Amino acid sequence: MRAGDLEGAVSGGAEGAAALGKLTSVVLDALAEGAVTRGGPLPAGGPQAVARRLRAAVGPVLPEYGTGAEEALRTVTRAVAEGAADPADPWCVAHLHCPPLAVAAAADLAASALNPSMDSWDQAPAAAVLEQEVTAALGALVHPGGPAPDALVTSGGTEANLVALLLARERAGAATVRVVCGDTAHHSVRRAAWLLGLPEPVVLPCRDGRLDPAAVDRALTGLAAPALVVATAGTTDEGRIDPLPQLADVARRHGAELHVDAAYGGPLLFSDRLAPRLAGLSAATSVTFDLHKLGWQPVAAGLLTVPDSALLAPLALTADYLNADDDTEAGLPDLLGRSLRTTRRPDVLKIATTLRALGRTGLGALVEHCVRAAEELAARVDAHPRLRRRPGDTGISTVLFRPAAADALTGEAGDALVAEVRRVLLAEGRAVVGRAVAEDADGRRRLWLKATLLHPRTAGEDLEGLLDLVAATAAAVTPAVATTPGAATAAAAGRIRTGNEPEGPR
Amino acid sequence: MRAGDLEGAVSGGAEGAAALGKLTSVVLDALAEGAVTRGGPLPAGGPQAVARRLRAAVGPVLPEYGTGAEEALRTVTRAVAEGAADPADPWCVAHLHCPPLAVAAAADLAASALNPSMDSWDQAPAAAVLEQEVTAALGALVHPGGPAPDALVTSGGTEANLVALLLARERAGAATVRVVCGDTAHHSVRRAAWLLGLPEPVVLPCRDGRLDPAAVDRALTGLAAPALVVATAGTTDEGRIDPLPQLADVARRHGAELHVDAAYGGPLLFSDRLAPRLAGLSAATSVTFDLHKLGWQPVAAGLLTVPDSALLAPLALTADYLNADDDTEAGLPDLLGRSLRTTRRPDVLKIATTLRALGRTGLGALVEHCVRAAEELAARVDAHPRLRRRPGDTGISTVLFRPAAADALTGEAGDALVAEVRRVLLAEGRAVVGRAVAEDADGRRRLWLKATLLHPRTAGEDLEGLLDLVAATAAAVTPAVATTPGAATAAAAGRIRTGNEPEGPR
Repeated sequence: MRAGDLEGAVSGGAEGAAALGKLTSVVLDALAEGAVTRGGPLPAGGPQAVARRLRAAVGPVLPEYGTGAEEALRTVTRAVAEGAADPADPWCVAHLHCPPLAVAAAADLAASALNPSMDSWDQAPAAAVLEQEVTAALGALVHPGGPAPDALVTSGGTEANLVALLLARERAGAATVRVVCGDTAHHSVRRAAWLLGLPEPVVLPCRDGRLDPAAVDRALTGLAAPALVVATAGTTDEGRIDPLPQLADVARRHGAELHVDAAYGGPLLFSDRLAPRLAGLSAATSVTFDLHKLGWQPVAAGLLTVPDSALLAPLALTADYLNADDDTEAGLPDLLGRSLRTTRRPDVLKIATTLRALGRTGLGALVEHCVRAAEELAARVDAHPRLRRRPGDTGISTVLFRPAAADALTGEAGDALVAEVRRVLLAEGRAVVGRAVAEDADGRRRLWLKATLLHPRTAGEDLEGLLDLVAATAAAVTPAVATTPGAATAAAAGRIRTGNEPEGPR
Repeated sequence: MRAGDLEGAVSGGAEGAAALGKLTSVVLDALAEGAVTRGGPLPAGGPQAVARRLRAAVGPVLPEYGTGAEEALRTVTRAVAEGAADPADPWCVAHLHCPPLAVAAAADLAASALNPSMDSWDQAPAAAVLEQEVTAALGALVHPGGPAPDALVTSGGTEANLVALLLARERAGAATVRVVCGDTAHHSVRRAAWLLGLPEPVVLPCRDGRLDPAAVDRALTGLAAPALVVATAGTTDEGRIDPLPQLADVARRHGAELHVDAAYGGPLLFSDRLAPRLAGLSAATSVTFDLHKLGWQPVAAGLLTVPDSALLAPLALTADYLNADDDTEAGLPDLLGRSLRTTRRPDVLKIATTLRALGRTGLGALVEHCVRAAEELAARVDAHPRLRRRPGDTGISTVLFRPAAADALTGEAGDALVAEVRRVLLAEGRAVVGRAVAEDADGRRRLWLKATLLHPRTAGEDLEGLLDLVAATAAAVTPAVATTPGAATAAAAGRIRTGNEPEGPR
């Protein structure tokens, strides 16, 4: 490698910005080209075809000799963009997987270029202050009456839930804390208990997708150990909000603590109209709050908020190279207790930029948009002759529905049809729709298709065509499902041939 | 907010790239401006002044109404850049905090814009394949003889060490695994044991900065529980490499397992000349390997490598919405067991792009450059009349030294002078130098200044001025330290006034 060429250029300083500008223009072109080549919400052909194309485009990933910065950026970016499931496409609605705002993605470039690490002041002097301001402001949003509202920036809801359980374990002073949650709680709650060496949580069935305070009351009555009730404000499957005030009451009566996983629902607080849905949230000892769902940040942008900064004390840690006592006494801020990680990317930079660009009301308007889009979609499903919506309320911005054709099948074939429709749409590269098991009107648990609306601009009418496609796919797939489950997916993948797919195996 | 303006634009699709391009140009300008205003490796004035300036520039971080995308990007980026400790500056050498390559930072923009999430195929079809290719290749680099080398992408060495201990706990089938490590092991090893509910590790003193196999032998002899020996290839304080072949032998004889934290040293494997220093590494059951140190990635780019993919099985997890059994049987890849996180940024994108741009030999050349720069710096310290180097070998790319003036002071005043010199340099914004406690020739532990050379272009001669500055600062500070520790830092911070600093408190 020659000194002075772009391969060895670093991104910092004034010169770094110039080198970076040359290279980001390559990336932007490749992103646009990849999107055009893909031509839809995800690549066609199913997993094997996508893998073949990626491998053919990229070849060996650790070559002896480099191809240069521009070639590498063009090739890798184009291949990944062409093979992406793009949440910016209105028909990419499977998950709590948002299309990032361009302003947030652009701010994230500054994080990459400057590369502050949030574990010590001398790696992130200004970024650390910015984080302090933002965590205090978001802590106060969630816990307006708290003595010293604060928050930690996490890698997402999973880490936030982990820290919440860890803090509860440390407050109890023993690994005997019993978590009590609903079967709609995110899987990370159980995983965190496992990781931390806590007993298996008490998991209560949620009949209407919400945690029942009476069931929690009964569960707590039977427990000898200290307990942490984990409620959810925006379930993963349906976007439903547990009855927080009642759960807070029950927990208080039993001397238990309350953690609320509001990874999905938390941003309702940005909207004056929607915030009342989260009444009771401020009673929680800790709250999981994500901005890479409703919040439109590139991953990661998680938070754990607390009403009192002192609750974070168990994370305090001294490492002489990062926060020696004499440095702290001399006024160098001690940041090491602000995370389970050590080296840590300044995710706060994109968050702060987005909060400033849109303001609370601007973000609230986007949240309201998504809620409204889901209501519109629900109405369209209800009006559709060949689809049926899961009975009951629509969650925050999630709609569950299934083809009427599935109801016409007996035994497990109905659920098999629902799953097959989803997989065929994925294999054809036409839509990314989710799945969820939830109770039907007759009390039986059935499989549903799931549309999670997180696009800040998509309207219900943009999804009318998707509804027709789902119904048509169900009709086309029904005969195969009735005989050989899985056959339709394989057939769909087999039908897809794109111009740039190489022949033969890898 | 009006529909159609940049505030609501998303970064995906072909149109997203265009919106993103307008905004990244604002960011690039602001980065350059911030670097020029800063005018050095870090902002002057110390923590309080930096905080004041940041707060004055940014104001309330959650305003009711937004300022628009461009204003927000300009203001926040400029403030954070102006207040950054920039590792691209040759005198920013405190930590394992690298200046990212521009090619890696540019590739990271694609990750932000596309926002794949690595927890399910339908959120990251191509990115998941790319990760599979890269983790297999890097696994094979570390464990060339392994049956099925593999790796997990982590948020850094801390998470990699955590997963290593978790896997050991699960293999043992009980939370009784005893970790045996040196006092030079990274603090995250002890923290992981705490997190996982494991007993306090057995921490052995390291007399020359390396873990002594005989001491490990004695420690293992006394243990009834299953044990995990944690060795380090590149200690945080000195970059020293534990005697891996001997440690592997000792562990094997006792039926213990070996984990190696090669977060710093791992990339020596890219260089034919330096790889032999890591002989014995492939005997480990797991290896922590970071690419945001020697590897020049923006944070995060951690890895945990294993010789056999089957070792990762304890992380397997089913969540119906992400990897339902029938979807997995139908051929949709199951990615959920590839991390402790759920939603996960595709850090592999920048890693893959960098590996391709530079190739193994190109990266190896950069690693060799840093090692050589440290050797040059060590020689310059040895030749300097007013500095003294910590006796013994130089670590991978780390040099410990102290002003001779510190040796002239009695009691703890010598260490106080070393600490004060570092803080004065920080307060003046002139250099970012680290600190480490290490044994001196007389067997006593003393405080040293630390230079960690990770810049791919800086040469030893670029640091000659830094050495003179350290010596001069020591001379200037000595009288104050002898009377009032901390006074010199306060005075240095007080002396600094920059044109754009507001008067008065916030």
